[in-house]
Amino acid sequence: MDFMKPETVLDLGNIRDALVRMEDTIIFNFIERSQFYASPSVYKVNQFPIPNFDGSFLDWLLSQHERIHSQVRRYDAPDEVPFFPNVLEKTFLPKINYPSVLASYADEINVNKEILKIYTSEIVPGIAAGSGEQEDNLGSCAMADIECLQSLSRRIHFGRFVAEAKFISEGDKIVDLIKKRDVEGIEALITNAEVEKRILDRLLEKGRAYGTDPTLKFTQHIQSKVKPEVIVKIYKDFVIPLTKKVEVDYLLRRLEDEEDDDATQKSGGYVDRFLSSGLY
Amino acid sequence: MDFMKPETVLDLGNIRDALVRMEDTIIFNFIERSQFYASPSVYKVNQFPIPNFDGSFLDWLLSQHERIHSQVRRYDAPDEVPFFPNVLEKTFLPKINYPSVLASYADEINVNKEILKIYTSEIVPGIAAGSGEQEDNLGSCAMADIECLQSLSRRIHFGRFVAEAKFISEGDKIVDLIKKRDVEGIEALITNAEVEKRILDRLLEKGRAYGTDPTLKFTQHIQSKVKPEVIVKIYKDFVIPLTKKVEVDYLLRRLEDEEDDDATQKSGGYVDRFLSSGLY
Repeated sequence: MDFMKPETVLDLGNIRDALVRMEDTIIFNFIERSQFYASPSVYKVNQFPIPNFDGSFLDWLLSQHERIHSQVRRYDAPDEVPFFPNVLEKTFLPKINYPSVLASYADEINVNKEILKIYTSEIVPGIAAGSGEQEDNLGSCAMADIECLQSLSRRIHFGRFVAEAKFISEGDKIVDLIKKRDVEGIEALITNAEVEKRILDRLLEKGRAYGTDPTLKFTQHIQSKVKPEVIVKIYKDFVIPLTKKVEVDYLLRRLEDEEDDDATQKSGGYVDRFLSSGLY
Repeated sequence: MDFMKPETVLDLGNIRDALVRMEDTIIFNFIERSQFYASPSVYKVNQFPIPNFDGSFLDWLLSQHERIHSQVRRYDAPDEVPFFPNVLEKTFLPKINYPSVLASYADEINVNKEILKIYTSEIVPGIAAGSGEQEDNLGSCAMADIECLQSLSRRIHFGRFVAEAKFISEGDKIVDLIKKRDVEGIEALITNAEVEKRILDRLLEKGRAYGTDPTLKFTQHIQSKVKPEVIVKIYKDFVIPLTKKVEVDYLLRRLEDEEDDDATQKSGGYVDRFLSSGLY
Protein backbone atom coordinates (compact mmCIF):
# COMPACT_ATOMS: atom_id res chain seq x y z
CA MET A 1 0.00 0.00 0.00
CA ASP A 2 1.38 3.37 -1.06
CA PHE A 3 -0.54 6.47 0.00
CA MET A 4 0.91 8.28 -3.00
CA LYS A 5 -0.84 5.75 -5.28
CA PRO A 6 -4.55 5.94 -4.42
CA GLU A 7 -5.40 2.80 -6.39
CA THR A 8 -3.29 0.77 -3.92
CA VAL A 9 -4.95 2.25 -0.83
CA LEU A 10 -8.55 1.03 -1.18
CA ASP A 11 -7.53 -2.42 -2.42
CA LEU A 12 -8.99 -4.79 0.19
CA GLY A 13 -6.06 -7.19 -0.25
CA ASN A 14 -3.58 -4.42 0.57
CA ILE A 15 -5.69 -3.27 3.50
CA ARG A 16 -5.78 -6.81 4.85
CA ASP A 17 -1.98 -7.22 4.49
CA ALA A 18 -1.42 -3.92 6.30
CA LEU A 19 -3.72 -4.97 9.17
CA VAL A 20 -1.97 -8.35 9.45
CA ARG A 21 1.44 -6.66 9.55
CA MET A 22 0.22 -4.30 12.27
CA GLU A 23 -0.52 -7.34 14.44
CA ASP A 24 3.24 -7.96 14.73
CA THR A 25 3.94 -4.36 15.72
CA ILE A 26 1.18 -4.39 18.34
CA ILE A 27 2.32 -7.72 19.80
CA PHE A 28 5.96 -6.58 19.88
CA ASN A 29 4.89 -3.41 21.70
CA PHE A 30 2.82 -5.38 24.23
CA ILE A 31 5.83 -7.62 24.86
CA GLU A 32 8.06 -4.58 25.42
CA ARG A 33 5.53 -3.08 27.86
CA SER A 34 5.32 -6.41 29.71
CA GLN A 35 8.82 -5.79 31.12
CA PHE A 36 7.39 -3.24 33.55
CA TYR A 37 4.78 -3.13 36.27
CA ALA A 38 1.34 -1.61 35.75
CA SER A 39 2.61 1.64 37.37
CA PRO A 40 -0.81 3.33 37.87
CA SER A 41 0.88 6.60 38.87
CA VAL A 42 1.92 7.04 35.22
CA TYR A 43 -1.76 7.49 34.34
CA LYS A 44 -3.00 9.58 37.29
CA VAL A 45 -3.74 13.22 36.48
CA ASN A 46 -1.35 15.68 38.17
CA GLN A 47 0.44 12.94 40.09
CA PHE A 48 3.79 14.60 39.28
CA PRO A 49 4.93 18.25 39.38
CA ILE A 50 4.93 18.83 35.61
CA PRO A 51 5.29 22.60 35.04
CA ASN A 52 2.48 24.31 33.07
CA PHE A 53 0.70 21.06 32.39
CA ASP A 54 -2.62 19.61 33.47
CA GLY A 55 -2.74 15.87 32.87
CA SER A 56 -0.94 12.63 33.61
CA PHE A 57 2.72 11.72 33.18
CA LEU A 58 1.75 9.71 30.09
CA ASP A 59 -0.34 12.59 28.73
CA TRP A 60 2.68 14.88 28.99
CA LEU A 61 5.15 12.50 27.33
CA LEU A 62 2.73 11.46 24.57
CA SER A 63 1.77 15.07 23.81
CA GLN A 64 5.46 16.06 23.70
CA HIS A 65 6.14 13.21 21.25
CA GLU A 66 3.18 14.32 19.09
CA ARG A 67 4.37 17.94 19.13
CA ILE A 68 7.81 16.82 17.86
CA HIS A 69 6.41 14.30 15.35
CA SER A 70 4.00 16.84 13.89
CA GLN A 71 7.03 18.90 12.86
CA VAL A 72 8.12 15.96 10.67
CA ARG A 73 4.68 15.57 9.05
CA ARG A 74 3.58 12.51 11.03
CA TYR A 75 0.00 13.71 11.18
CA ASP A 76 -0.09 14.77 7.56
CA ALA A 77 -0.04 11.03 6.76
CA PRO A 78 -3.55 9.70 6.10
CA ASP A 79 -3.13 6.77 8.51
CA GLU A 80 -1.94 8.73 11.56
CA VAL A 81 -4.38 10.21 14.08
CA PRO A 82 -3.13 12.30 17.04
CA PHE A 83 -4.16 11.85 20.67
CA PHE A 84 -3.54 15.58 21.37
CA PRO A 85 -4.48 17.48 18.17
CA ASN A 86 -4.17 20.82 19.97
CA VAL A 87 -0.39 20.51 20.51
CA LEU A 88 0.52 19.86 16.88
CA GLU A 89 2.91 22.33 15.20
CA LYS A 90 3.62 23.24 11.59
CA THR A 91 6.10 21.00 9.78
CA PHE A 92 9.38 22.39 8.50
CA LEU A 93 9.42 19.76 5.79
CA PRO A 94 8.03 20.35 2.33
CA LYS A 95 4.32 19.45 2.23
CA ILE A 96 3.40 16.10 0.70
CA ASN A 97 0.29 16.24 -1.43
CA TYR A 98 -1.27 12.93 -0.61
CA PRO A 99 -3.96 12.12 -3.16
CA SER A 100 -7.21 12.27 -1.20
CA VAL A 101 -8.76 8.85 -0.81
CA LEU A 102 -11.01 9.24 2.23
CA ALA A 103 -14.02 11.48 2.75
CA SER A 104 -13.41 15.14 3.60
CA TYR A 105 -14.37 14.63 7.27
CA ALA A 106 -12.07 11.60 7.82
CA ASP A 107 -9.78 13.51 10.20
CA GLU A 108 -12.77 14.14 12.45
CA ILE A 109 -13.20 10.40 13.05
CA ASN A 110 -10.95 10.13 16.12
CA VAL A 111 -11.57 7.55 18.87
CA ASN A 112 -8.20 8.07 20.57
CA LYS A 113 -9.83 9.22 23.82
CA GLU A 114 -11.58 5.87 24.07
CA ILE A 115 -8.38 4.03 23.10
CA LEU A 116 -6.42 5.83 25.82
CA LYS A 117 -9.08 5.07 28.45
CA ILE A 118 -9.36 1.40 27.53
CA TYR A 119 -5.60 1.04 27.26
CA THR A 120 -4.84 2.39 30.73
CA SER A 121 -7.78 0.72 32.49
CA GLU A 122 -8.13 -2.60 30.69
CA ILE A 123 -5.08 -3.39 28.55
CA VAL A 124 -2.15 -2.38 30.82
CA PRO A 125 -3.28 -4.58 33.73
CA GLY A 126 -3.41 -7.53 31.33
CA ILE A 127 0.06 -7.12 29.83
CA ALA A 128 2.11 -5.60 32.71
CA ALA A 129 4.67 -7.67 34.65
CA GLY A 130 2.84 -7.00 37.92
CA SER A 131 0.22 -4.75 39.44
CA GLY A 132 2.42 -2.42 41.52
CA GLU A 133 4.54 0.67 41.05
CA GLN A 134 8.17 0.90 39.93
CA GLU A 135 9.33 4.40 40.73
CA ASP A 136 12.53 4.08 38.73
CA ASN A 137 10.74 2.81 35.59
CA LEU A 138 8.10 5.50 35.06
CA GLY A 139 9.79 6.80 31.89
CA SER A 140 10.32 3.34 30.43
CA CYS A 141 6.68 2.46 31.09
CA ALA A 142 5.38 5.62 29.45
CA MET A 143 7.65 5.21 26.43
CA ALA A 144 6.45 1.64 25.95
CA ASP A 145 2.87 2.88 26.42
CA ILE A 146 3.33 5.42 23.62
CA GLU A 147 4.43 2.72 21.19
CA CYS A 148 1.44 0.57 22.19
CA LEU A 149 -1.04 3.47 21.92
CA GLN A 150 0.22 4.70 18.55
CA SER A 151 0.15 1.21 17.01
CA LEU A 152 -3.32 0.50 18.43
CA SER A 153 -4.58 3.87 17.17
CA ARG A 154 -3.24 3.29 13.69
CA ARG A 155 -4.80 -0.20 13.55
CA ILE A 156 -8.20 0.99 14.81
CA HIS A 157 -8.38 4.09 12.60
CA PHE A 158 -7.45 1.97 9.59
CA GLY A 159 -11.18 1.20 9.82
CA ARG A 160 -11.73 4.39 7.78
CA PHE A 161 -9.98 2.80 4.78
CA VAL A 162 -11.94 -0.41 5.27
CA ALA A 163 -15.18 1.63 5.42
CA GLU A 164 -14.38 3.61 2.28
CA ALA A 165 -13.49 0.44 0.39
CA LYS A 166 -16.80 -1.15 1.49
CA PHE A 167 -18.74 1.99 0.62
CA ILE A 168 -17.41 1.70 -2.92
CA SER A 169 -17.85 -2.07 -3.20
CA GLU A 170 -21.30 -2.33 -1.55
CA GLY A 171 -22.89 0.47 -3.59
CA ASP A 172 -26.65 1.02 -3.14
CA LYS A 173 -27.02 -1.57 -0.37
CA ILE A 174 -24.88 0.48 2.00
CA VAL A 175 -26.28 3.81 0.79
CA ASP A 176 -29.78 2.62 1.77
CA LEU A 177 -28.60 1.57 5.24
CA ILE A 178 -26.89 4.94 5.71
CA LYS A 179 -30.00 6.82 4.60
CA LYS A 180 -32.09 4.79 7.09
CA ARG A 181 -29.40 5.41 9.82
CA ASP A 182 -29.56 1.62 10.28
CA VAL A 183 -26.48 1.14 12.49
CA GLU A 184 -27.16 -2.54 13.12
CA GLY A 185 -27.61 -3.12 9.43
CA ILE A 186 -24.31 -1.38 8.67
CA GLU A 187 -22.55 -3.37 11.40
CA ALA A 188 -23.89 -6.62 9.97
CA LEU A 189 -22.73 -5.61 6.48
CA ILE A 190 -19.19 -4.76 7.58
CA THR A 191 -18.80 -7.82 9.86
CA ASN A 192 -17.18 -11.03 8.64
CA ALA A 193 -17.19 -13.51 11.52
CA GLU A 194 -14.94 -15.93 9.70
CA VAL A 195 -12.29 -13.28 9.08
CA GLU A 196 -12.48 -12.25 12.73
CA LYS A 197 -11.99 -15.85 13.86
CA ARG A 198 -8.95 -16.16 11.58
CA ILE A 199 -7.51 -12.96 13.08
CA LEU A 200 -7.92 -14.30 16.63
CA ASP A 201 -6.43 -17.69 15.75
CA ARG A 202 -3.44 -16.03 14.12
CA LEU A 203 -2.92 -13.74 17.15
CA LEU A 204 -2.78 -16.78 19.43
CA GLU A 205 0.01 -18.30 17.34
CA LYS A 206 1.86 -15.01 16.96
CA GLY A 207 1.61 -14.37 20.70
CA ARG A 208 3.28 -17.72 21.36
CA ALA A 209 5.91 -17.38 18.64
CA TYR A 210 6.98 -13.80 19.42
CA GLY A 211 6.63 -14.01 23.17
CA THR A 212 8.80 -17.01 23.92
CA ASP A 213 12.52 -17.59 23.44
CA PRO A 214 12.63 -20.25 20.69
CA THR A 215 15.77 -21.80 22.21
CA LEU A 216 13.76 -22.61 25.34
CA LYS A 217 10.91 -24.35 23.52
CA PHE A 218 11.77 -27.77 24.91
CA THR A 219 12.02 -26.60 28.51
CA GLN A 220 9.22 -27.18 30.99
CA HIS A 221 6.44 -24.58 31.50
CA ILE A 222 7.88 -22.10 29.06
CA GLN A 223 5.83 -18.95 29.52
CA SER A 224 5.11 -16.33 26.93
CA LYS A 225 6.06 -12.80 28.02
CA VAL A 226 2.42 -11.80 27.38
CA LYS A 227 -0.21 -14.54 27.63
CA PRO A 228 -1.37 -15.14 24.03
CA GLU A 229 -4.93 -15.51 25.35
CA VAL A 230 -4.69 -11.95 26.72
CA ILE A 231 -3.68 -10.62 23.31
CA VAL A 232 -6.66 -12.40 21.76
CA LYS A 233 -9.00 -10.98 24.40
CA ILE A 234 -7.70 -7.44 23.81
CA TYR A 235 -8.41 -7.77 20.10
CA LYS A 236 -11.79 -9.44 20.63
CA ASP A 237 -13.07 -7.07 23.34
CA PHE A 238 -11.49 -3.79 22.23
CA VAL A 239 -9.55 -3.60 18.96
CA ILE A 240 -12.14 -5.20 16.67
CA PRO A 241 -15.16 -3.45 18.26
CA LEU A 242 -13.42 -0.05 18.20
CA THR A 243 -12.42 -0.55 14.57
CA LYS A 244 -16.08 -1.24 13.79
CA LYS A 245 -17.10 1.89 15.65
CA VAL A 246 -14.69 3.86 13.43
CA GLU A 247 -16.16 2.22 10.33
CA VAL A 248 -19.77 2.94 11.38
CA ASP A 249 -18.98 6.54 12.44
CA TYR A 250 -17.29 7.04 9.07
CA LEU A 251 -20.08 5.46 7.02
CA LEU A 252 -22.94 7.26 8.78
CA ARG A 253 -21.52 10.56 7.47
CA ARG A 254 -20.39 9.24 4.12
CA LEU A 255 -23.27 10.76 2.13
CA GLU A 256 -22.28 14.26 3.32
CA ASP A 257 -19.59 14.38 0.66
CA GLU A 258 -22.00 13.03 -1.95
CA GLU A 259 -24.45 15.82 -1.11
CA ASP A 260 -21.63 18.40 -1.46
CA ASP A 261 -20.67 16.83 -4.82
CA ASP A 262 -24.33 16.98 -5.99
CA ALA A 263 -24.54 20.65 -4.96
CA THR A 264 -21.35 21.36 -6.92
CA GLN A 265 -22.69 19.58 -9.97
CA LYS A 266 -26.08 21.40 -9.69
CA SER A 267 -24.11 24.73 -9.68
CA GLY A 268 -22.71 23.65 -13.06
CA GLY A 269 -19.46 22.75 -11.43
CA TYR A 270 -18.90 26.50 -10.96
CA VAL A 271 -16.99 26.02 -7.79
CA ASP A 272 -14.70 23.46 -9.36
CA ARG A 273 -14.08 25.56 -12.42
CA PHE A 274 -13.36 28.58 -10.24
CA LEU A 275 -10.95 26.65 -8.01
CA SER A 276 -9.04 25.22 -10.92
CA SER A 277 -9.00 28.51 -12.80
CA GLY A 278 -6.16 29.90 -10.79
CA LEU A 279 -8.09 33.18 -10.38
CA TYR A 280 -8.21 33.07 -6.57
CA MET B 1 18.07 -6.67 38.03
CA ASP B 2 17.02 -3.69 40.11
CA PHE B 3 19.22 -0.60 39.99
CA MET B 4 17.91 0.35 43.43
CA LYS B 5 19.36 -2.90 44.82
CA PRO B 6 23.10 -2.81 44.00
CA GLU B 7 23.63 -6.46 44.93
CA THR B 8 21.38 -7.46 42.00
CA VAL B 9 23.21 -5.28 39.47
CA LEU B 10 26.68 -6.89 39.39
CA ASP B 11 25.30 -10.43 39.57
CA LEU B 12 26.59 -12.04 36.34
CA GLY B 13 23.43 -14.17 36.09
CA ASN B 14 21.24 -11.07 36.17
CA ILE B 15 23.49 -9.29 33.68
CA ARG B 16 23.25 -12.27 31.35
CA ASP B 17 19.44 -12.41 31.61
CA ALA B 18 19.21 -8.68 30.86
CA LEU B 19 21.44 -9.04 27.79
CA VAL B 20 19.40 -12.00 26.53
CA ARG B 21 16.14 -10.05 26.98
CA MET B 22 17.64 -7.10 25.08
CA GLU B 23 18.11 -9.42 22.09
CA ASP B 24 14.32 -9.57 21.69
CA THR B 25 13.97 -5.77 21.82
CA ILE B 26 16.76 -5.28 19.27
CA ILE B 27 15.32 -7.91 16.90
CA PHE B 28 11.79 -6.45 17.22
CA ASN B 29 13.20 -3.01 16.41
CA PHE B 30 15.11 -4.31 13.39
CA ILE B 31 11.91 -5.97 12.16
CA GLU B 32 9.99 -2.70 12.55
CA ARG B 33 12.69 -0.80 10.65
CA SER B 34 12.60 -3.42 7.89
CA GLN B 35 9.21 -2.08 6.77
CA PHE B 36 10.91 0.93 5.20
CA TYR B 37 13.54 1.61 2.60
CA ALA B 38 17.12 2.56 3.48
CA SER B 39 16.18 6.25 2.92
CA PRO B 40 19.75 7.67 2.92
CA SER B 41 18.39 11.24 2.96
CA VAL B 42 17.34 10.68 6.58
CA TYR B 43 21.04 10.49 7.52
CA LYS B 44 22.50 13.23 5.31
CA VAL B 45 23.58 16.40 7.14
CA ASN B 46 21.45 19.46 6.30
CA GLN B 47 19.45 17.61 3.67
CA PHE B 48 16.26 19.23 4.99
CA PRO B 49 15.46 22.84 5.99
CA ILE B 50 15.45 22.28 9.76
CA PRO B 51 15.45 25.71 11.44
CA ASN B 52 18.38 26.49 13.79
CA PHE B 53 19.82 23.03 13.45
CA ASP B 54 23.02 21.66 11.94
CA GLY B 55 22.78 17.91 11.40
CA SER B 56 20.68 15.24 9.74
CA PHE B 57 16.96 14.60 9.94
CA LEU B 58 17.69 11.66 12.27
CA ASP B 59 20.02 13.80 14.39
CA TRP B 60 17.24 16.35 14.87
CA LEU B 61 14.53 13.83 15.78
CA LEU B 62 16.80 11.78 18.06
CA SER B 63 18.08 14.88 19.87
CA GLN B 64 14.50 16.13 20.31
CA HIS B 65 13.53 12.78 21.81
CA GLU B 66 16.54 12.91 24.15
CA ARG B 67 15.71 16.46 25.23
CA ILE B 68 12.15 15.35 26.15
CA HIS B 69 13.27 12.08 27.77
CA SER B 70 15.89 13.82 29.89
CA GLN B 71 13.06 15.74 31.52
CA VAL B 72 11.65 12.41 32.75
CA ARG B 73 15.02 11.23 34.13
CA ARG B 74 15.85 8.82 31.31
CA TYR B 75 19.55 9.66 31.48
CA ASP B 76 19.67 9.56 35.26
CA ALA B 77 19.25 5.79 34.91
CA PRO B 78 22.62 3.99 35.10
CA ASP B 79 21.95 1.97 31.92
CA GLU B 80 21.00 4.85 29.60
CA VAL B 81 23.61 6.79 27.61
CA PRO B 82 22.60 9.77 25.44
CA PHE B 83 23.63 10.33 21.82
CA PHE B 84 23.38 14.13 22.28
CA PRO B 85 24.45 14.91 25.88
CA ASN B 86 24.49 18.64 25.17
CA VAL B 87 20.71 18.86 24.61
CA LEU B 88 19.70 17.24 27.90
CA GLU B 89 17.52 19.29 30.27
CA LYS B 90 16.83 19.15 34.01
CA THR B 91 14.13 16.74 35.09
CA PHE B 92 10.98 17.98 36.77
CA LEU B 93 10.65 14.68 38.56
CA PRO B 94 12.04 14.07 42.04
CA LYS B 95 15.64 12.84 41.81
CA ILE B 96 16.23 9.12 42.26
CA ASN B 97 19.31 8.31 44.31
CA TYR B 98 20.56 5.29 42.51
CA PRO B 99 23.11 3.49 44.66
CA SER B 100 26.38 3.90 42.77
CA VAL B 101 27.62 0.62 41.36
CA LEU B 102 29.93 1.69 38.55
CA ALA B 103 33.16 3.68 38.67
CA SER B 104 32.89 7.46 38.96
CA TYR B 105 33.86 8.00 35.31
CA ALA B 106 31.29 5.50 33.91
CA ASP B 107 29.24 8.24 32.22
CA GLU B 108 32.32 9.24 30.23
CA ILE B 109 32.39 5.83 28.54
CA ASN B 110 30.17 6.69 25.56
CA VAL B 111 30.58 5.01 22.15
CA ASN B 112 27.30 6.33 20.73
CA LYS B 113 29.08 8.24 17.95
CA GLU B 114 30.51 4.98 16.67
CA ILE B 115 27.14 3.23 17.11
CA LEU B 116 25.38 5.94 15.07
CA LYS B 117 28.00 5.76 12.31
CA ILE B 118 27.92 1.96 12.09
CA TYR B 119 24.14 1.90 12.29
CA THR B 120 23.56 4.27 9.39
CA SER B 121 26.35 2.95 7.17
CA GLU B 122 26.36 -0.78 7.89
CA ILE B 123 23.23 -1.88 9.74
CA VAL B 124 20.44 0.03 7.93
CA PRO B 125 21.41 -1.30 4.47
CA GLY B 126 21.21 -4.84 5.90
CA ILE B 127 17.76 -4.55 7.47
CA ALA B 128 15.92 -2.07 5.21
CA ALA B 129 13.21 -3.21 2.78
CA GLY B 130 15.14 -1.75 -0.15
CA SER B 131 17.96 0.59 -0.99
CA GLY B 132 16.05 3.62 -2.25
CA GLU B 133 14.23 6.61 -0.84
CA GLN B 134 10.61 6.84 0.35
CA GLU B 135 9.79 10.51 0.64
CA ASP B 136 6.55 9.93 2.50
CA ASN B 137 8.16 7.60 5.09
CA LEU B 138 11.05 9.75 6.36
CA GLY B 139 9.44 10.21 9.79
CA SER B 140 8.56 6.53 10.16
CA CYS B 141 12.11 5.54 9.23
CA ALA B 142 13.68 7.94 11.71
CA MET B 143 11.34 6.86 14.50
CA ALA B 144 12.19 3.20 13.87
CA ASP B 145 15.88 4.19 13.75
CA ILE B 146 15.61 5.81 17.18
CA GLU B 147 14.24 2.63 18.71
CA CYS B 148 17.03 0.60 17.08
CA LEU B 149 19.76 3.03 18.16
CA GLN B 150 18.57 3.31 21.77
CA SER B 151 18.28 -0.45 22.21
CA LEU B 152 21.70 -1.04 20.58
CA SER B 153 23.25 1.67 22.76
CA ARG B 154 21.81 0.20 25.94
CA ARG B 155 23.03 -3.29 25.01
CA ILE B 156 26.56 -2.11 24.13
CA HIS B 157 26.99 0.17 27.14
CA PHE B 158 25.82 -2.67 29.40
CA GLY B 159 29.46 -3.71 28.91
CA ARG B 160 30.29 -1.32 31.79
CA PHE B 161 28.34 -3.56 34.21
CA VAL B 162 30.01 -6.65 32.75
CA ALA B 163 33.42 -4.98 33.16
CA GLU B 164 32.77 -3.94 36.78
CA ALA B 165 31.55 -7.44 37.65
CA LYS B 166 34.71 -8.93 36.09
CA PHE B 167 36.93 -6.39 37.82
CA ILE B 168 35.53 -7.60 41.14
CA SER B 169 35.60 -11.31 40.28
CA GLU B 170 39.05 -11.39 38.58
CA GLY B 171 40.85 -9.49 41.32
CA ASP B 172 44.66 -9.19 41.04
CA LYS B 173 44.81 -10.86 37.61
CA ILE B 174 42.92 -8.03 35.98
CA VAL B 175 44.61 -5.34 38.10
CA ASP B 176 47.98 -6.50 36.76
CA LEU B 177 46.77 -6.36 33.15
CA ILE B 178 45.41 -2.86 33.73
CA LYS B 179 48.67 -1.68 35.30
CA LYS B 180 50.57 -3.07 32.29
CA ARG B 181 48.01 -1.41 29.90
CA ASP B 182 47.80 -4.90 28.33
CA VAL B 183 44.75 -4.40 26.13
CA GLU B 184 45.08 -7.78 24.42
CA GLY B 185 45.43 -9.48 27.78
CA ILE B 186 42.29 -7.74 29.04
CA GLU B 187 40.39 -8.64 25.87
CA ALA B 188 41.39 -12.28 26.27
CA LEU B 189 40.28 -12.24 29.91
CA ILE B 190 36.85 -10.78 29.14
CA THR B 191 36.21 -12.96 26.07
CA ASN B 192 34.27 -16.22 26.32
CA ALA B 193 34.09 -17.71 22.81
CA GLU B 194 31.59 -20.35 23.88
CA VAL B 195 29.20 -17.75 25.28
CA GLU B 196 29.54 -15.71 22.10
CA LYS B 197 28.72 -18.75 19.97
CA ARG B 198 25.61 -19.43 22.08
CA ILE B 199 24.52 -15.81 21.61
CA LEU B 200 24.85 -16.05 17.83
CA ASP B 201 23.04 -19.42 17.67
CA ARG B 202 20.19 -18.02 19.77
CA LEU B 203 19.93 -14.91 17.59
CA LEU B 204 19.54 -17.08 14.50
CA GLU B 205 16.60 -18.90 16.08
CA LYS B 206 15.06 -15.72 17.45
CA GLY B 207 15.42 -14.02 14.06
CA ARG B 208 13.45 -16.86 12.46
CA ALA B 209 10.82 -17.10 15.20
CA TYR B 210 10.10 -13.36 15.53
CA GLY B 211 10.48 -12.48 11.88
CA THR B 212 8.05 -14.89 10.30
CA ASP B 213 4.30 -15.24 10.65
CA PRO B 214 3.89 -18.58 12.47
CA THR B 215 0.65 -19.31 10.61
CA LEU B 216 2.61 -19.32 7.35
CA LYS B 217 5.25 -21.79 8.53
CA PHE B 218 4.10 -24.53 6.19
CA THR B 219 4.01 -22.33 3.11
CA GLN B 220 6.81 -22.41 0.55
CA HIS B 221 9.82 -20.04 0.74
CA ILE B 222 8.57 -18.27 3.87
CA GLN B 223 10.92 -15.35 4.33
CA SER B 224 11.83 -13.70 7.59
CA LYS B 225 11.24 -9.94 7.61
CA VAL B 226 14.94 -9.52 8.46
CA LYS B 227 17.31 -12.28 7.39
CA PRO B 228 18.36 -14.04 10.61
CA GLU B 229 21.89 -14.33 9.21
CA VAL B 230 22.00 -10.52 8.94
CA ILE B 231 21.07 -10.18 12.61
CA VAL B 232 23.84 -12.62 13.53
CA LYS B 233 26.35 -10.71 11.38
CA ILE B 234 25.39 -7.39 13.02
CA TYR B 235 26.03 -8.88 16.47
CA LYS B 236 29.21 -10.62 15.41
CA ASP B 237 30.76 -7.69 13.50
CA PHE B 238 29.48 -4.75 15.56
CA VAL B 239 27.52 -5.37 18.77
CA ILE B 240 29.91 -7.82 20.44
CA PRO B 241 33.11 -5.96 19.41
CA LEU B 242 31.69 -2.59 20.49
CA THR B 243 30.61 -4.05 23.83
CA LYS B 244 34.17 -5.29 24.33
CA LYS B 245 35.50 -1.86 23.46
CA VAL B 246 33.27 -0.41 26.19
CA GLU B 247 34.53 -3.04 28.64
CA VAL B 248 38.20 -2.38 27.81
CA ASP B 249 37.79 1.42 27.89
CA TYR B 250 36.08 1.05 31.28
CA LEU B 251 38.69 -1.32 32.73
CA LEU B 252 41.73 0.64 31.54
CA ARG B 253 40.60 3.53 33.79
CA ARG B 254 39.32 1.38 36.64
CA LEU B 255 42.29 1.97 38.96
CA GLU B 256 41.66 5.74 38.88
CA ASP B 257 38.95 5.31 41.47
CA GLU B 258 41.18 3.04 43.54
CA GLU B 259 43.91 5.73 43.56
CA ASP B 260 41.31 8.31 44.69
CA ASP B 261 40.15 5.92 47.46
CA ASP B 262 43.79 5.38 48.57
CA ALA B 263 44.34 9.17 48.70
CA THR B 264 41.19 9.53 50.80
CA GLN B 265 42.32 6.82 53.18
CA LYS B 266 45.83 8.34 53.43
CA SER B 267 44.22 11.68 54.42
CA GLY B 268 42.65 9.75 57.32
CA GLY B 269 39.39 9.70 55.52
CA TYR B 270 39.21 13.44 56.21
CA VAL B 271 37.28 14.12 53.07
CA ASP B 272 34.73 11.45 53.86
CA ARG B 273 34.31 12.56 57.42
CA PHE B 274 33.91 16.14 56.27
CA LEU B 275 31.33 15.19 53.61
CA SER B 276 29.29 13.11 56.01
CA SER B 277 29.51 15.70 58.81
CA GLY B 278 26.81 17.88 57.35
CA LEU B 279 29.03 20.93 57.94
CA TYR B 280 29.18 21.97 54.30
